[in-house]
Amino acid sequence: MKIAIAGSGAMGSRFGLMLQKSGEDVLLIDGWQAHIEAILSNGLKANFNGEEVSVNIPIVHQEEVHLDKKYDLIILFTKAMQLDKMMTDIKGIIDENTQVLCLLNGIGHEDTIEKYVPLENIYLGNTMWTAGLEGPGVAKLFGNGSIELQNLGVGQEENAKKIAEVLSNAGLNASFSENIRLSIYNKACVNGTMNGLCTLLDVNMATLGNTRTALYMCRSIVNEFAAVAKFEGVALDIPAIMEKIKSCFDPLTIGLHFPSMHQDLMRNNRLTEIDFINGAISRKGRKYGIVTPYCDFLTELVHAKEDILKAE
Amino acid sequence: MKIAIAGSGAMGSRFGLMLQKSGEDVLLIDGWQAHIEAILSNGLKANFNGEEVSVNIPIVHQEEVHLDKKYDLIILFTKAMQLDKMMTDIKGIIDENTQVLCLLNGIGHEDTIEKYVPLENIYLGNTMWTAGLEGPGVAKLFGNGSIELQNLGVGQEENAKKIAEVLSNAGLNASFSENIRLSIYNKACVNGTMNGLCTLLDVNMATLGNTRTALYMCRSIVNEFAAVAKFEGVALDIPAIMEKIKSCFDPLTIGLHFPSMHQDLMRNNRLTEIDFINGAISRKGRKYGIVTPYCDFLTELVHAKEDILKAE
Repeated sequence: MKIAIAGSGAMGSRFGLMLQKSGEDVLLIDGWQAHIEAILSNGLKANFNGEEVSVNIPIVHQEEVHLDKKYDLIILFTKAMQLDKMMTDIKGIIDENTQVLCLLNGIGHEDTIEKYVPLENIYLGNTMWTAGLEGPGVAKLFGNGSIELQNLGVGQEENAKKIAEVLSNAGLNASFSENIRLSIYNKACVNGTMNGLCTLLDVNMATLGNTRTALYMCRSIVNEFAAVAKFEGVALDIPAIMEKIKSCFDPLTIGLHFPSMHQDLMRNNRLTEIDFINGAISRKGRKYGIVTPYCDFLTELVHAKEDILKAE
Repeated sequence: MKIAIAGSGAMGSRFGLMLQKSGEDVLLIDGWQAHIEAILSNGLKANFNGEEVSVNIPIVHQEEVHLDKKYDLIILFTKAMQLDKMMTDIKGIIDENTQVLCLLNGIGHEDTIEKYVPLENIYLGNTMWTAGLEGPGVAKLFGNGSIELQNLGVGQEENAKKIAEVLSNAGLNASFSENIRLSIYNKACVNGTMNGLCTLLDVNMATLGNTRTALYMCRSIVNEFAAVAKFEGVALDIPAIMEKIKSCFDPLTIGLHFPSMHQDLMRNNRLTEIDFINGAISRKGRKYGIVTPYCDFLTELVHAKEDILKAE
């Protein structure tokens, strides 16, 4: 199968490496020149569950993709704010048979993808795999994960299951989901509380959890996610989500970690994905006539912090 | 006139000093032992518009007030969160002839005072004077100011004007106001935007003003103040308040200053007055059936920051 990974950072590298190993014809596509050059010169280097590997794998800059070759499957793994530019750059490799699987964090990406791809070829997924980059061309790939995915187009269930099979054959542990939006919303509720609040208050999750107002704030934010999801026919289980959030506060499990948005903005001075988490709820809320003031205010505060820190 | 100043920090010291100088019988009341001892030993020392003065002025700890002496006028100048304790401590010096003038920052203090004083003896004021403390017993009193005040009780206008006269005789430039709540709300709108946002984002007012979302956030907060004020029959001029807020962002005037709440929490690790600014709007909103999510969330975030910094 001809598979392009659009956005080949840590997670894209993992998927590319594992899919090529299982015999697929993989192309990595990315926009970070130093990363591309490192992989072209030395191959993709990775610590893969403790074993040092070095793999030759084709990679190309997204602005230099050969537009005469079409792909069977494109897996989207960009940062949320880079998705639209990526789709513009690679639209030439998409034809009416190209299936596009979106594995980005956050919600509402299908609105962007639909501008370039017919609905029946779009698949949404949610991944529990993790990955890190140690530097250009060097990945750190530990632990296990899984993927759920579902077709957006009517009657494309069999194709969704085939994509899951290809991914599972590569060890990526993928399964067909009857309700991928529920999984995506569940994950977004955790990101939509932990990310923005820990970033703004400059704390880890356990310290946030120890404040007298953490649960009120999380609950108010989750209520807004649930109202928007309900309008889309997705019924969130709010008490279960609140339990999941409380478990993030536990210093004995993951409480001492800083969420990725904190790392992006406070440590690396990068723009955040807030517009595709809480900001997406605000946009959907405006569209549906649902007020989402906690998501609005949190998005505005994080943008203010980006400006103050001159994030790029 | 027998006048007690309940809360004799920087502003209370200014008022006590100026009122005693004009011939009034003044007692300072406070809860800070070191400050009391310094004034008992060395008098109140002050740099008063450039002149070093040292004045003997009676001061007593609020828990040791002589309860046999009643006062004609009590001027309240505590920190907002200390008001209730102060009223409990000094209720013995209040009788049916004691007038009580509240000059605290923030809104809604009359709800606390009414538990101790009949409505017809309560007066609300708004002061534009400033003052600072350099240490226990040492004040810095620069510049000019003014006071507006009004009776809360029906038919007490003449008494309000008499209080204004006593204050003006001491050089405090007081006048009777036909609509003190409007003045208080106008001031609270500036405090309710600059204080919480600059504290949370750890910036001065000019830096806040330079963020892309500052005006949206301020406007949303002011809208909530206006909705609550309207329910109380006070019509806020939102465009005029937004102009006032914009003027705070100007680095050529006061933009480079950090609001007092930032100094309290971020510099001195003290609990903030947020419950009596945005938090008061939230409480009033709940009472009136008006939603105030921006004030709710801002209050919760500032409380979280207090907990994180272990403020006291």
